[in-house]
This record gives sequence, C-alpha cells and structure tokens, in this order.
Amino acid sequence: MRIDGRHRDELRPMAVTRNFIKHAQGSVLIEVGDTRVICTAMIEEKVPPFLKGQKQGWVTAEYEMLPASTNTRKSRDRNRGKIDGRTMEIQRLIGRSLRSVIDLSKLGERTIWIDCDVIQADGGTRTSAITGAFIALHDALTGMVKNGQIKEMPVTSFVAATSVGIHQGEPLVDLCYEEDSNAEVDMNMVMTEKGEIIEIQGTGEERPFNKEELAKLLSLGEESIKQIIDFQKETLLG
Amino acid sequence: MRIDGRHRDELRPMAVTRNFIKHAQGSVLIEVGDTRVICTAMIEEKVPPFLKGQKQGWVTAEYEMLPASTNTRKSRDRNRGKIDGRTMEIQRLIGRSLRSVIDLSKLGERTIWIDCDVIQADGGTRTSAITGAFIALHDALTGMVKNGQIKEMPVTSFVAATSVGIHQGEPLVDLCYEEDSNAEVDMNMVMTEKGEIIEIQGTGEERPFNKEELAKLLSLGEESIKQIIDFQKETLLG
Amino acid sequence: MRIDGRHRDELRPMAVTRNFIKHAQGSVLIEVGDTRVICTAMIEEKVPPFLKGQKQGWVTAEYEMLPASTNTRKSRDRNRGKIDGRTMEIQRLIGRSLRSVIDLSKLGERTIWIDCDVIQADGGTRTSAITGAFIALHDALTGMVKNGQIKEMPVTSFVAATSVGIHQGEPLVDLCYEEDSNAEVDMNMVMTEKGEIIEIQGTGEERPFNKEELAKLLSLGEESIKQIIDFQKETLLG
Amino acid sequence: MRIDGRHRDELRPMAVTRNFIKHAQGSVLIEVGDTRVICTAMIEEKVPPFLKGQKQGWVTAEYEMLPASTNTRKSRDRNRGKIDGRTMEIQRLIGRSLRSVIDLSKLGERTIWIDCDVIQADGGTRTSAITGAFIALHDALTGMVKNGQIKEMPVTSFVAATSVGIHQGEPLVDLCYEEDSNAEVDMNMVMTEKGEIIEIQGTGEERPFNKEELAKLLSLGEESIKQIIDFQKETLLG
Amino acid sequence: MRIDGRHRDELRPMAVTRNFIKHAQGSVLIEVGDTRVICTAMIEEKVPPFLKGQKQGWVTAEYEMLPASTNTRKSRDRNRGKIDGRTMEIQRLIGRSLRSVIDLSKLGERTIWIDCDVIQADGGTRTSAITGAFIALHDALTGMVKNGQIKEMPVTSFVAATSVGIHQGEPLVDLCYEEDSNAEVDMNMVMTEKGEIIEIQGTGEERPFNKEELAKLLSLGEESIKQIIDFQKETLLG
Amino acid sequence: MRIDGRHRDELRPMAVTRNFIKHAQGSVLIEVGDTRVICTAMIEEKVPPFLKGQKQGWVTAEYEMLPASTNTRKSRDRNRGKIDGRTMEIQRLIGRSLRSVIDLSKLGERTIWIDCDVIQADGGTRTSAITGAFIALHDALTGMVKNGQIKEMPVTSFVAATSVGIHQGEPLVDLCYEEDSNAEVDMNMVMTEKGEIIEIQGTGEERPFNKEELAKLLSLGEESIKQIIDFQKETLLG
Repeated sequence: MRIDGRHRDELRPMAVTRNFIKHAQGSVLIEVGDTRVICTAMIEEKVPPFLKGQKQGWVTAEYEMLPASTNTRKSRDRNRGKIDGRTMEIQRLIGRSLRSVIDLSKLGERTIWIDCDVIQADGGTRTSAITGAFIALHDALTGMVKNGQIKEMPVTSFVAATSVGIHQGEPLVDLCYEEDSNAEVDMNMVMTEKGEIIEIQGTGEERPFNKEELAKLLSLGEESIKQIIDFQKETLLG
Repeated sequence: MRIDGRHRDELRPMAVTRNFIKHAQGSVLIEVGDTRVICTAMIEEKVPPFLKGQKQGWVTAEYEMLPASTNTRKSRDRNRGKIDGRTMEIQRLIGRSLRSVIDLSKLGERTIWIDCDVIQADGGTRTSAITGAFIALHDALTGMVKNGQIKEMPVTSFVAATSVGIHQGEPLVDLCYEEDSNAEVDMNMVMTEKGEIIEIQGTGEERPFNKEELAKLLSLGEESIKQIIDFQKETLLG
Repeated sequence: MRIDGRHRDELRPMAVTRNFIKHAQGSVLIEVGDTRVICTAMIEEKVPPFLKGQKQGWVTAEYEMLPASTNTRKSRDRNRGKIDGRTMEIQRLIGRSLRSVIDLSKLGERTIWIDCDVIQADGGTRTSAITGAFIALHDALTGMVKNGQIKEMPVTSFVAATSVGIHQGEPLVDLCYEEDSNAEVDMNMVMTEKGEIIEIQGTGEERPFNKEELAKLLSLGEESIKQIIDFQKETLLG
Repeated sequence: MRIDGRHRDELRPMAVTRNFIKHAQGSVLIEVGDTRVICTAMIEEKVPPFLKGQKQGWVTAEYEMLPASTNTRKSRDRNRGKIDGRTMEIQRLIGRSLRSVIDLSKLGERTIWIDCDVIQADGGTRTSAITGAFIALHDALTGMVKNGQIKEMPVTSFVAATSVGIHQGEPLVDLCYEEDSNAEVDMNMVMTEKGEIIEIQGTGEERPFNKEELAKLLSLGEESIKQIIDFQKETLLG
Repeated sequence: MRIDGRHRDELRPMAVTRNFIKHAQGSVLIEVGDTRVICTAMIEEKVPPFLKGQKQGWVTAEYEMLPASTNTRKSRDRNRGKIDGRTMEIQRLIGRSLRSVIDLSKLGERTIWIDCDVIQADGGTRTSAITGAFIALHDALTGMVKNGQIKEMPVTSFVAATSVGIHQGEPLVDLCYEEDSNAEVDMNMVMTEKGEIIEIQGTGEERPFNKEELAKLLSLGEESIKQIIDFQKETLLG
Repeated sequence: MRIDGRHRDELRPMAVTRNFIKHAQGSVLIEVGDTRVICTAMIEEKVPPFLKGQKQGWVTAEYEMLPASTNTRKSRDRNRGKIDGRTMEIQRLIGRSLRSVIDLSKLGERTIWIDCDVIQADGGTRTSAITGAFIALHDALTGMVKNGQIKEMPVTSFVAATSVGIHQGEPLVDLCYEEDSNAEVDMNMVMTEKGEIIEIQGTGEERPFNKEELAKLLSLGEESIKQIIDFQKETLLG
C-alpha cells in the first residue's frame, strides 16, 4: 500500500476541464491527483527565424510554476533575470514530445505556442503537462480544421506521459511529491498510442539501477500510459 | 445599455473560490465577469533587509499575467529579463493598498507574500486582484491567529477596488476590456469599508476631464466599492 | 508656517534655463526649490514598431536620478540590470502627460525622446520633470516649425504638474522632501491650461483620506498649476 | 560500414592528456575522435548555502562550448545574458552523474567545481565530458588524499558515458556529429563499472522507437561503456 | 590655426563650479570648452568585500553620458542591461588615476564613490572627468578632515589629465570632438603635479606612430597638464 | 636574474601550434611560458549593421578566460549576466590592434571573428592573444586568397605585442604573473614590423613613473616585439 492508499501500478485520479481559458484556441486544466496544470495552445501566424520560407510550422512550449504552487514559495524566474535549469529542461521536453506526433508540414507557416502553468504541484508536473498539453493542442488543431486554416489534422498519434520510479525497492507509477522526493530511481516516459517510446529519461537519484529494474519500470510505464491515452481519447473523441 | 447589457452603475457578477491552492495559507480564485485571477498569500518567517530588527512585518505583492490570459499571447517577462512597466506599477499598487489596512506591528517579523496571477483578462485585473488578494490575506491572517502565530487580527479595515471611467461621454463602473480600451477617461479607486480613499489614479486617456466629471466618477466608485466590500464580508464572515 | 517658511498654498521659487544642452533640439534646466532636473527633447526620424506606417508620431520619456541627487547615494539602475519600479512609473506618467497635449498626427513619423535627469532631488521631481519637459518639448517643436519639418505646432494645450498633500492635518502644495516623507496623504496632479485634469494620483500613505480632503487638495492643486502654467507661458512666449 | 569506416559497435579512438592545466587540482584534455574537451576539477573550501553545516561536500559542473568548437561560430552565452537550454541540461547531467559515484560525506565541507569546456565538437560532447571529468575528479581526489585533506577516496565506482542511436535503421555506438544529426533515435547512457545505469536519456528524434530497439541500444551502450571504463582504469591506475 | 581658433598647444577655456550638488560631500561642474561633466564624491562608511578588515579605504568611480550629451541620442545602458565597453574602460581609468594619489590607509574603512556624469560632450570627457573628479574628491576629503572623520589629508599629489593627438600631421592638445574624430593618433595622459606619469594610453586610430611623434605628444601633454594643475590649485587653494 | 632565471630583456619561450581547431579558418594554440591561449579566426559572410552597404569588412575580437585558467577559479561571466570590465578592455584592444593592420576594404562585406580563449594564465594573456590572433588571422586570410574569396592579402603589416614593466626598480620585458602582480609600473605595447606604435598603455600601479623610465620601457618593448615578429614570420612564412 502506498502513502495515499494506491496500489503500486495505480494511477492517481485524472480530470480535465476543456476550454478553460477563453483567449486560447485550445486550453485545459488538467488535474492529476493534487497536481494541477493549465495547458494552453495559441496560434501565431509566423514561424521562428530558422524556419522562414520552409513551408512548415512549429510547436514550442513554455513551462512555469506559480509561486504558490510549491510548499515553500518559489520565487519568479523573471526576478532573477534567468530561467531555472529544471524549467528549461522541462519545457524542452514538452516541446520535443508534442512535435514528435505532429506533421509540421501540415501546419502551414504557423507557430503553436504551448503554455503549461503549474498552479499546484504534487509530483509529476512535467508528465501531466505533456498529457494535458496534447489535449489543448488537439483542440486547437481541430478548431483550425473546422475554420479552414488547415486541411487535415496534422496529428500522427496520441501522446501521453507518466513517471515511474523505485521507492523503497518497489517499482511505482505516477509518483506523488512525497514518493518522488524519496525515490531511489526516477524515470519519466513519453509514449505514443502504439506503445512506442518518444522519450525516456531515467536517473538513479539515490543509487544506480540494473537492467532488470529498468525492464520492470518500462512495463509499468507502458501499461499506465495506455490507460492515460484511453482517457485522452474518451475526453476528446468522447 | 452597455455592451454586455449592464446598467452604467452595475458591477459584473463576482465569484470567489476560497482555498484554491493547497500550499498557500490563503488563496482564492476571484472571477469578475470574464476576468479571473488567482490570489495567494504565503507567509515567510523573515522580513526584507530594510526592516530587520524593527519588530514589524511586511506585506508585498507580485502580479503577473499568464501568456494565454490576453487575446494575443503575452510573452513572459522572464524571457526579456525585465519586468514590464505596467506590471511593476500594478504590483506596487496592490502592495500599498493592502499594507494600508494592516497594522504591520502586529505581524511579527514576517513577510506575507501576495501573488496575483491573472489567468484570464477582460478588464479590471488590477482592481480584481486587490479585492481578491484582500480575501486571501484575511484567510491567511485568520489562520495565523488560530494557530497562535499572532495574537489578534492586524486588519484595520476591509479594502476593495474597482475601476470607473468615461466611455462615450457616460460615466461607467467596472469596465470590461472593450469598454476600457475605448474609454476617454480611466480611473482606478481603492477604498476602505468606511468609504475613505486609499488610492485614486485617474488618467485622461483620450482627453482631459473636469472636476464635475471627477465628482461623478468618485460617487460611482464609492457606491460600487461599498457593494464589493459587502460581498467580501459575506464571503469571509458569512 | 511651513518648514521652509512658505504658506501652505505657496509654491517654491521656480527657475528655468533654456537651451541648457546644445545637442538637444529642446533642453532646459528646471529648478523648483532645491529640486533640479535637466529635461531634453530630441527628435528621431522614425517611430516605434507598433506605429509604423500609421502616419503619426510618438512622444516617449525616460527619467533617471543621478547617484548624487539623493541624500544617500542612489546606485545606478544599469548595475542591477533592471529599472527601478518607481522610475518606471514616473517615466510612464511623464510620457502620458505630454502625449495628452500633443496632436501626434501633426508630428509626422517621428519620435520625440524626452529625457528627464534629476541632478538634485528635494521632493517633486516627477512633477518638476513634467513642467520642465513641456518647455523643452515646446522649444523642440517650435524649432521644427521654423525649419519646416512640420507645418504647425502640434500642441493642443499647455500642461504642468505639481504635488499636493496633507501634512500634520494641513493641505499643502509643492511639498519639499521633508514634508513629502512625512505626509499623511500624497497626490500628484497634471493639468491643462484650462484647468482640466490629465492625471491624478493620490495615495493615503499614512491613512486613508475622505472626499472633503480630496476636494481641498484638488482646489489647491488647480490654483497652483494655473500659476505654473503662467510661468511657462512667460518663459516661452515672453 | 559507417561514415568514418567504423563498425557499428566500434568506439572512436580515445585519448587523455592528464595534468593539462596547471592551476586545477585535476585536469585532462579528452579526445574522442575529433571531439575534444578540457575537463578540470578545482577545489573550493566551502559549500553552497543549501548545504551549510551539513558536514558534507558538493560536486557541481559547468559546461561550455568555445565559439570555434562548432562548424558555424557559436555566440557566447555571456553576450545574451542567459545560458542556453541545451547547455543547462548538459551541465546538470554531468553534475548528477559524478555525484552519484561520490560519497559526499567523505569530502568535508568543500565544493569540487568541474568545468568541461569543449574546444572542438564532433558529436558526443556531453558523454566525453562525463568520461573525462571523472578522470579529472579522480586525480583531484587522489591529490586530496595524498596531501591529507581527506582520509580516503570518496569514489564508490568508476563512471563513464557514451551515446548510442539508430541511424538508417541500424543501432550505432558513439555517434559522430554527422551520424548524430541524422539519427532517428538518440540515447545517452551513463553507467558504473558494474554495468548499472546512472542515467539514461533516449529521444525519438525522427520517429518513436519500440522496446526491442531500446533493448538493442541498451546492450550496445553497456558493452561500450565497459570498454571506456577499462580505458579509464588503465589511464588512472596504469 | 585649429578649427576653433586655438593654437596647437592651447587648452580650451576651463571653468569649475564647486558645491554644485548639495547632497554630495564634494561636487563640481567642470566645463572644458563645450564639454561639461558633473563630478561628485560621496562617502560610504564601508569598504567593498575584498578589503574588509584590512584597515584601509577605497576610491571607486562610475562614468555615464546622459542621453542628450551626444549629437545623436545615446540610449541608456540600463535599457540594454549591460554597460558599454567604452564606459567600463573610462570608469576604470578614473578610479585608478584617483587611487594613485590617495593614501588609502589614511581613509579608514570607507569607500569614496566618484560619479562623473557627462551632461554635454565635445571631446575629452574622460580627461575632464579626471580633472574635475580630483577637485570634488579633494573637497570631500577636506570636509572629512574638518569634521574629524580623518586626521590628515590622504592626498599625495594633485592629478589631472588631458588628451593629445595627431591631426592632419600636427600634434594638438585637448582635442574637441571634431578633431578627435579625425585624429590619426589619439592619446590620453594622466599626470601628477611633479610631471610624473600615472597613466598613458595611446592609440594609432588611423595609422601607427613612431617614437619621435610619441615624444612630441608627451611634451605637449606634460606642459598642458602643468597648466591644468595650476588651475586646480588656484581653484582649491585660492 | 629574474624569478624564472631570465635576463631582464629576455622573452619567455614561445610556441605556436597552427590549425589547432578544425572548424576555424585560422586557429592557433599560442604558448608564452606557461600562458596558453587558443586563438581562432572565423569568417562570417556579413558585416555588423553600422557597416552595411559600405563595401568593406570588419574584424572583431572576443576574449575569455576559462574558469581553471587562473589560480583561484574564475567564475564565468555568463553566470553574472555581464562581462567583466577587464575582459571588455582586452577584447577591444585586440580588435583595434588587428584592424590597424588590415585593409578592411579588401575583405568584402565579411566579418572575421577572432576568439581568444585563455586556457592557462601566467601573465601577458592580452599580449599573447594579440600575437597569436594575428597568426590565426593571417592563416584565415591566406585561405581566403587561396580559395578565391578575396583577391589579395589585406594585411598591411605584421603586428605583435608584449608587456614591459618596472619591477623592484628594474625594467623587465614579458612579465610572468608573479612579476606582473608586484610591478610598480606596467605597460602593454602593440607594434608593427616597422617598429611603429599601434597602441601603448602604461599604468603606474604602485607609483607614477617619469619620462626616463618611459623611454627605457619603450626601447625594451621595441626590441622584444621585433623578436616576436621574427618568430611570427618564421612560423607563417617559414
């Protein structure tokens, strides 16, 4: 039994509120246990300089934690004039993950800005952000098809993410903050609906881990991401 | 009749969700029409350097708009490495307004950090932030009294704010974004429960205004802030 | 009797040296009591990006205090890599005030840069800056008419500013630093030659203030700004 | 046959010059094919604030590419006033990898600063940096034992890293720049001398990858890192 | 005959207004032809960290040009978040020059902040700043002796500076802006009252120069600095 | 006899490794005693904005010290978000020195970026950088002539630099760090192959110096730079 009563392969309750922010073409509030992230997708009618004239679009992501999202107030990056290393890593991961399932050549010369703002953090903010941002992006793209901006959906696969880890020798899925802080091994996985890997990042926080442990974590993550993608499909396609 | 069907002295619907963020000692989601702001109050057990050893506390505020809160995506201040002039003005106003109704000597050597994060903007974000932040602050202070951190409530008065303005020659209260963008005169008022002025900032955006117009705006603002403070009291004291 | 022997409705001696800096199209040293500000107006033959192609000009202002202008040396903003919140507020106020009396469509696609550098501060630096900057701007515009850059003066009204406040229960005008630091209520007013309000910013620093007090402050400010505009006219039009 | 004539499981030639910089307690020039990195370890007799008084040390890493290290000149981060996201990720990875094999409690209250400066880049700069930095760190620690600063070596295991990837459908090890730029899948692995995983980061750059492919990459990486650690041992222990 | 009618060894008219800024312990407006610089000296009762506990003081300088001081408006360094290279060089030169004639051990643990703000530039701003700053510093030190902060004057020699250069083949002293912009060789000299060199910085802007030319420039500079120091003595000692 | 056994007019051993970095069009590792600097020259097919359309090229230089190049680790400028004053001065000096011997009109609209990265410092880093950068620049230009990018070599003269100084009353050349730190007078000289001066910067660090001392230093520097230019010629023209 885990700290919050879950089985070791049990995901936390997940909820999604669509159209959460009226100005964004796609927007959700995603709740994964006590972790809550606002994910928005906004369209800009131009591409970054390195893509000019290449007849393709771009998807980019930013991630931020509100000061009150953590137990001890987190000072705003803008006050230090530079972005936190962890933040940088996470927003690059979100961007890569989403781009991997979008056919950018079908977007036209447009940028879709994904913003993931964590309003309450309890572990798994980056994976929740990916899961939620995909829904916001899907909604924005559906809107673009509807109003004729693009001809067909550029989505090549659903994508979702979760964390797995080893805590007190046990492989667990979807770690809450307390589990995450004490995990010996911590791994984030991003997968497609076909169970293929888009990104895998595993760290031996307290100790190295061997290949058997890695195999267990991979299976656990794969099973869980399947459930999450089912949830996404239900939400979006109903 | 106004653009959204209101009378010229009619406030937009206001809603407050308390305890919106679990990590903050006080936190609300305030909704004023389509304007939505998360206001949190977090306690830090030290004061800024200029107050060290003076046996008093401090209340300070930060304000930020999420990128998707506005019609066109607002780039994050952290990326430019400096804070927007308007943001700076607003957070200084929020801080001054709240400090004016708190007896800082009763706080002990503590700082209360107020964070106002606008998740959706439709005019009146700074005044909604003040109104909401007061509730979050009140909740945090009530908690401090309950758990014995302080002996008595340091609140000397309720405080709330609203905007008034002249639009097409007519004095209006609580302007939505469209009204605000086209107003000839724009004024923000912060008042106490006794109808006294804490802060008044009026600007002739399109043209100067005379003393008669000022008098009308003041009355309109005063009446409206009374209603808002009634709403705060009902929310807090039930 | 006030600390410097003035009556409560008496302005400090005001002096203006025109053509103080040879490189600027308009430039004054304005002295208001011991407050001294260099105000310059320089013309640039382009507009900011947001105005391109709109057949109008722009007026923008920057404000800074020299390190030795204050009692304790003020560290330069450039060393901290960010602009002081108060500085930001003041330069936005100066810019708005001047733009409100200029018909920007008569400027052509030009920017007029106003720089207000405080070399000695003794209260009222922002209002002195507005009063002085208007003269520098008027001189620069007169020069532009003379040399044929523009056809007619784009000035729609004279504009000047002063501070009023309540100090030991008494309404005072044009507060010096010592009065300002101890004022219960502090208000800055910017008005046109017709006695209309362009900007009003009142703060209850020590306590809230009521409508009767506001009315007294407004009258006092109005009377005083009339005198200041008379002084400006005498200076400029002789 | 690969672009540079190697077999798919063949590492590039590796060379290490120890004591490359006289001021550092440990320093190497590591060359992996055409990739060349200066790795230094310098001791500072204090710990970062968050470790003060905890009777343990710290190991931290910085990574930078010289402007001429890449084909097109890379502008220095200092000129933009912020650190590149990729740089941030890499230096965090280097730091974590080294800390995972050091018993920090045996360091005393000291920080060991690892600097990895890439003077020529041809793929695999981050993994070469980890492999080289471990040698520099080992040398610095050996020196500390010799001169009595610490009693015993705090190294719990050797650590090294390499890249693996899928290029034109083939799993390859130790990718050079041209292979890396065209790889479908890219993975960095950091392992101990016992073949345990410290860090694994795999990205489907061009397409997702399945579990069989992952398994092949893991084996390939494991074999190769064994060889690299043999090389490290020969270099250090002779 | 030079562009402004001077002989080639003739200095521009020099004027100094002492006590120009009331808040500084020493302050002058120095005018050298059309070049005008405000130089102030302010005392701070602490030393920079690297001098703590060393029983000596410090003298440091900052230099800045007001936006309107140059023909084309000079944008403020604070807006770019970094200090101009030329500015940096100049303020380091001013600091070194002044420190070279002050016995820092007689200052006590104090910092004297020198600020040189150019309000109008017409060549020779850095040398005028040194000449003027010395007077401000002397005044501040005299005040410290008078009020008992220090026992004796820590000044070991007077110091002044001027520019020399080769323009159209002719060695000239104290170049105005137009001469300076077209000079083939440009040299700044800082000397003591005994004719000894503190700092010499010569640059072949348009072409290299030989030792004979250097000798001529040195003589010219030496003669002129003697005159300037005579002027300083007259000003200060009457 | 000097600290390292040299005569007072004896240069340290100098060595140059050409083609040190494969991506740069010209690159050397220059070693002057224990001082080692990587100097590279890279060509960019555009000029800075202020030269656009002027049918000439530009040469610009950047200088940086690696953290481990100095005895105590030097923190990276990028972490403070601003460039060190000394660094700024040095890279401006390198750029000016190289430009003075290049006919920029023969470069075409190109920028040559010179990067001087100090990997080990033992005095004379700036002068070694100039000497080495000239060789890298010469190699890059020779390559441009060979591959037809430019028609003829734009080099008008060889250029090299060294330091001279007065240490314990004796004039010395090419000071190592220990001599440099204790020198009474410190001077950097940059000269052409004809023995003409491009730049001279002398500072009385501990005391002023007189004209006789200056003359001695000049002769010493001139003799030494001749030897260095002979070495450059041998290296390049062999």
